[in-house]
Amino acid sequence: MQALILAGGSGTRFWPLSRRSKPKQLLALEGERTLLQATVDRLAPLVPAESVWVCTTREIAGDVAEQLPGVPAEQILSEPEGRDTAAAIGWSVHRIRAAVGDQVVVVLPADHRVGRADAFRATLEEAQRVADGGSVVALGVEPRWAEVAYGYLELGDTLDEATGLRRVARFTEKPNAETAKEFYDSGNYRWNGGIFVFRGSVLLDRLERHQPELAAALEELARRPDAIDELYGKLPRISIDFGVMEHLEDLVTLPLDCEWSDLGGWAALAELLPTDAAGNAVRGSVLAIDAADNLLYADHGTVAAIGVTGMVIIRTGDTVLVVPRERAEEVRLVTEELKRRRNDELL
Amino acid sequence: MQALILAGGSGTRFWPLSRRSKPKQLLALEGERTLLQATVDRLAPLVPAESVWVCTTREIAGDVAEQLPGVPAEQILSEPEGRDTAAAIGWSVHRIRAAVGDQVVVVLPADHRVGRADAFRATLEEAQRVADGGSVVALGVEPRWAEVAYGYLELGDTLDEATGLRRVARFTEKPNAETAKEFYDSGNYRWNGGIFVFRGSVLLDRLERHQPELAAALEELARRPDAIDELYGKLPRISIDFGVMEHLEDLVTLPLDCEWSDLGGWAALAELLPTDAAGNAVRGSVLAIDAADNLLYADHGTVAAIGVTGMVIIRTGDTVLVVPRERAEEVRLVTEELKRRRNDELL
Repeated sequence: MQALILAGGSGTRFWPLSRRSKPKQLLALEGERTLLQATVDRLAPLVPAESVWVCTTREIAGDVAEQLPGVPAEQILSEPEGRDTAAAIGWSVHRIRAAVGDQVVVVLPADHRVGRADAFRATLEEAQRVADGGSVVALGVEPRWAEVAYGYLELGDTLDEATGLRRVARFTEKPNAETAKEFYDSGNYRWNGGIFVFRGSVLLDRLERHQPELAAALEELARRPDAIDELYGKLPRISIDFGVMEHLEDLVTLPLDCEWSDLGGWAALAELLPTDAAGNAVRGSVLAIDAADNLLYADHGTVAAIGVTGMVIIRTGDTVLVVPRERAEEVRLVTEELKRRRNDELL
Repeated sequence: MQALILAGGSGTRFWPLSRRSKPKQLLALEGERTLLQATVDRLAPLVPAESVWVCTTREIAGDVAEQLPGVPAEQILSEPEGRDTAAAIGWSVHRIRAAVGDQVVVVLPADHRVGRADAFRATLEEAQRVADGGSVVALGVEPRWAEVAYGYLELGDTLDEATGLRRVARFTEKPNAETAKEFYDSGNYRWNGGIFVFRGSVLLDRLERHQPELAAALEELARRPDAIDELYGKLPRISIDFGVMEHLEDLVTLPLDCEWSDLGGWAALAELLPTDAAGNAVRGSVLAIDAADNLLYADHGTVAAIGVTGMVIIRTGDTVLVVPRERAEEVRLVTEELKRRRNDELL
């Protein structure tokens, strides 16, 4: 099995730690390893580093290669520009097939967190078996709350009681709050973990069926790889979810039970970091006095907090962010303001 | 008139900006000039820099000299160790008298703030006239609230209606809250601004009368200046307030009306800095979104605050402090904890 890690993302949710030139996947938010490195680490020994491919952007390809010395340099694929996930996956699968033939591929994000790597690999191994038979498998996470930021997989027929393999009756992107609650209460949905397993030839076939224009453009790119700078920027932009997965009538899902988190922002990270006696999630040099339930994160230097509760305080080498925990996702307001001010050095 | 600036202080109220090696008086908290520089600036032209003396510690004497190129190097007096203000003033007055004879001396702290320098100098000029006649003059600030951290001067007989010169009936150090309220309500008290004006010979006479042991030790030091390392550390420790001023029966006071502040900490500074439309006192590179009534102070780098109210956020090159405005004086808890941890680099 080959692994394709999508590492082209450039979110702002971990600002001021994440920057354009250092997006979330390149950060070691929890331990010593970056999220990208941890993604590769946890695939072994099922998928060793020699069978890992990374699709990323030219801007960060150098950092990606530096962080992953075990991944062959020619397997780090740099997009000239981002054209969303259907193009990235289609292009990469062409490259993988050209290099190693028609194998099973697991495609997965570079910036998620998994608590139990052994359980993760066991599910992946099962998914490999299923995908080898010609199915596209989406790994589904048991919902823990009525999240509105994720896609949902509605469960259909049970195909294998033992492994929990089910048909996907419907694929629904980010529902509104009411719908999310219905989904959650019904018990008949799984979160889309963004991890898909398929034979390369199957994925390309489905792409041709549901996104023929993109498929044709990718075929041309496969024939004229030297013209990438001319051709890549013209690829239609669509996500693999909207462009392919939600159209599949034979999509199946396996349950992924491995303490998964997409680490959607500072508040999510706070749930995962070690806490002190007062419930402060802490990292780095921190002094907390009469302070409770904060995220106190010193990437550089020291954070000293007195008498504050429920705050997120992030100190980097050049910036500090202070925001109430329940408003942490509003950090995008800061990056938007920085864009308006053309303050590029902080973006 | 000679000016003697007491610049040996080492407070912790402006941590993390103030450090052992860079106490408050060496900081430019408001404008471009440090508090020490501003103290010298506002004395001119009444007391030009050539007539300024600074009593400080050996640790910061180099920085003091660098900040005050106009003050003659031999007039920057370095104590081998701090022995409180009675010793510092007595020793310095001996040195001043030896150099320029028996002149009127104004002694003043290096770390206070004055809004109107012209009014300050006018009062000082009047105090010089009074002190020239043999009195010790304490400049008194009209109380603006029932402060417990200051000394109070109880007003006695009026000596000059025009200038507001009054006898001091009693000198009371830091009262409790109840007493402070009585003082404030009575209207018969002034805050002790820590600025005293006297002839050198008069101060030394009063020192001899009320602190004979200290006076004798200072006489010996004047005779054997080369033995300073041996003698200075043995000087009795007492403040000029307790040791001399509160014993004087002929202490007089002039009202000081010049927008005086002792800048007692971050909350006091917040009252003085420019504010944005939401009432945030700001300095440096600051991004405030839906944030009001904070002190947002970026000495290095950027402070970004979202949705926070009434906080003090101070970012220096190596540290950030976050504390509610009304608890800002608890910053001493941090420095105490740092001492316990022997974390000297942050002290």
